[in-house]
Amino acid sequence: MKIDRSTIEQAHERIKPYIHHTPVLTSASVDEATGCTVFFKCENFQKVGAFKARGAMNAALSLSPEQLAKGLATHSSGNHAQALARAAKILGVKSYIVMPRTAPEIKKRGVRGYGGEIFECEPTLVARESTLAEVIKKTGATEIHPFNNYEVMAGQATAAKELFEQVSDLDVIMVPVGGGGLLSGTALAAKYFSPKTKVIAGEPAGSDDTYRSMKSGNIEPAQSQSIADGLLTTLGDKTFPIIQELVTEVITVSDEQIIEAMKLVWERMKIIIETSCAVPLAALLKEKERFKGQRVGIILTGGNVDLARALKLMTEGVS
Amino acid sequence: MKIDRSTIEQAHERIKPYIHHTPVLTSASVDEATGCTVFFKCENFQKVGAFKARGAMNAALSLSPEQLAKGLATHSSGNHAQALARAAKILGVKSYIVMPRTAPEIKKRGVRGYGGEIFECEPTLVARESTLAEVIKKTGATEIHPFNNYEVMAGQATAAKELFEQVSDLDVIMVPVGGGGLLSGTALAAKYFSPKTKVIAGEPAGSDDTYRSMKSGNIEPAQSQSIADGLLTTLGDKTFPIIQELVTEVITVSDEQIIEAMKLVWERMKIIIETSCAVPLAALLKEKERFKGQRVGIILTGGNVDLARALKLMTEGVS
Repeated sequence: MKIDRSTIEQAHERIKPYIHHTPVLTSASVDEATGCTVFFKCENFQKVGAFKARGAMNAALSLSPEQLAKGLATHSSGNHAQALARAAKILGVKSYIVMPRTAPEIKKRGVRGYGGEIFECEPTLVARESTLAEVIKKTGATEIHPFNNYEVMAGQATAAKELFEQVSDLDVIMVPVGGGGLLSGTALAAKYFSPKTKVIAGEPAGSDDTYRSMKSGNIEPAQSQSIADGLLTTLGDKTFPIIQELVTEVITVSDEQIIEAMKLVWERMKIIIETSCAVPLAALLKEKERFKGQRVGIILTGGNVDLARALKLMTEGVS
Repeated sequence: MKIDRSTIEQAHERIKPYIHHTPVLTSASVDEATGCTVFFKCENFQKVGAFKARGAMNAALSLSPEQLAKGLATHSSGNHAQALARAAKILGVKSYIVMPRTAPEIKKRGVRGYGGEIFECEPTLVARESTLAEVIKKTGATEIHPFNNYEVMAGQATAAKELFEQVSDLDVIMVPVGGGGLLSGTALAAKYFSPKTKVIAGEPAGSDDTYRSMKSGNIEPAQSQSIADGLLTTLGDKTFPIIQELVTEVITVSDEQIIEAMKLVWERMKIIIETSCAVPLAALLKEKERFKGQRVGIILTGGNVDLARALKLMTEGVS
């Protein structure tokens, strides 16, 4: 399947009734700190608190009635789990979510709140995949992968499409990269709707597999040494080729830089963002000399944090 | 002076270049918790982090060049201090801010950041007023009162005016009340721009002077027994008559109810609000049976918090 202009337009029309058209915020303090004019697309205000609501909804709505009837399944300990459970609830079908038994109780409650059925497993990729395979065998549900899925990628692309409609003439658009669902979608949206805009990814230095993959030309495995816990994922074979073709640059940042950017947003913009969400702004701050005077769009990906933990990071730093 | 429709329209035109047109947010979680459809006008995203930027700017812009040249003065330990210093800076004149010596360092830094000159005094109303009188005598600056000033009130009215332009057919608009600048402005905006909308104030039970003033028909003195530290002010002789005439009801809430509402906004809406700012939502939650199914506008007044203190309140409660 190829994601072209009309794929993204159709995805957008399809999911519009079920998602927030999120606002774009600006901040004189951030502009001063970066030397740029920065436009923040606030997907932290999105349904389920993250852009993941877009991709999950588009993937669910793209299934046939027969497929849908048997339900949706995935393994995820993050925002995609809630997004998929929500999509299933809206469509009146079941969702089966495989989660590591170590996942925070609040995330499990979120999934259950949308009527999702949770299958706990050991916190390893092997256990997650084998448990998911069993669940699918038993239920006939369709797997909706968190990022390595063209409908999910087309859904995530709609965040950047909206931003391009809200703000013209962006020189740069920046997003974080984990598995690459948002990054590939954003790159495609820029290609079709704002071809002069450069696409740049921010990535934690402690899990810089995208940076290395761009250098080597192969999908390099992720490490997991960062507080940006939503970004510790390896690229997929559907996301990587698009990223390789369309993304200008990957900028890596330290955990300290991530916390500094997060604090700036909380304190000056009065909005709550996740650690992972602060990565692109951290990248912009790190390399601000190169972007001086430019119009920069940043997708704020999500706001699902443990308030106490986030505050501890911002007041005491990385321990 | 009478504030009529055109006073507010002119104030809005006058301040537009200097303020944010703040977004309106909705939240399925809040709608579920209240049983209403709630529209939040996000003045926590306003310049200086609070609606006070509107009134101070309008008052400053309403002065004659001769008055302006001698500078602006006020006593305030809160958001008005920063708002006035900012207005003065924009207009290239001096600002003289009398603050109790006990005011938090962060507030003083905020004022100095806008070039304001701070005069410290003892933390009593008498000391504040006498210090301000001295400063004015020496400098010839014009006092801009935080709320008991018609230009300030007309400026604050523009927040509700914008909300009525952004969202139609509100049954109710709710704001917090301290000195009554925002409440009187909101009531006037409703009268002229959305006459079917009822105006309701939220007030901390520990400083329920507006509630009592509405009963007695006289301005009753405020107490200061609430975590909502922006609302511990007595009404003014300019704000009270308007409130008395146009406000439907004052609902009082406990500190526990304020914290619960604040937590709901932080956790589910991903935005940072002050304690004082959570009061109207707390009032709506308290009386939700009476408002079932209605369209309710709430002005989120500000987001200037000490993050650590706010988090302590939300995790440990009132101590």
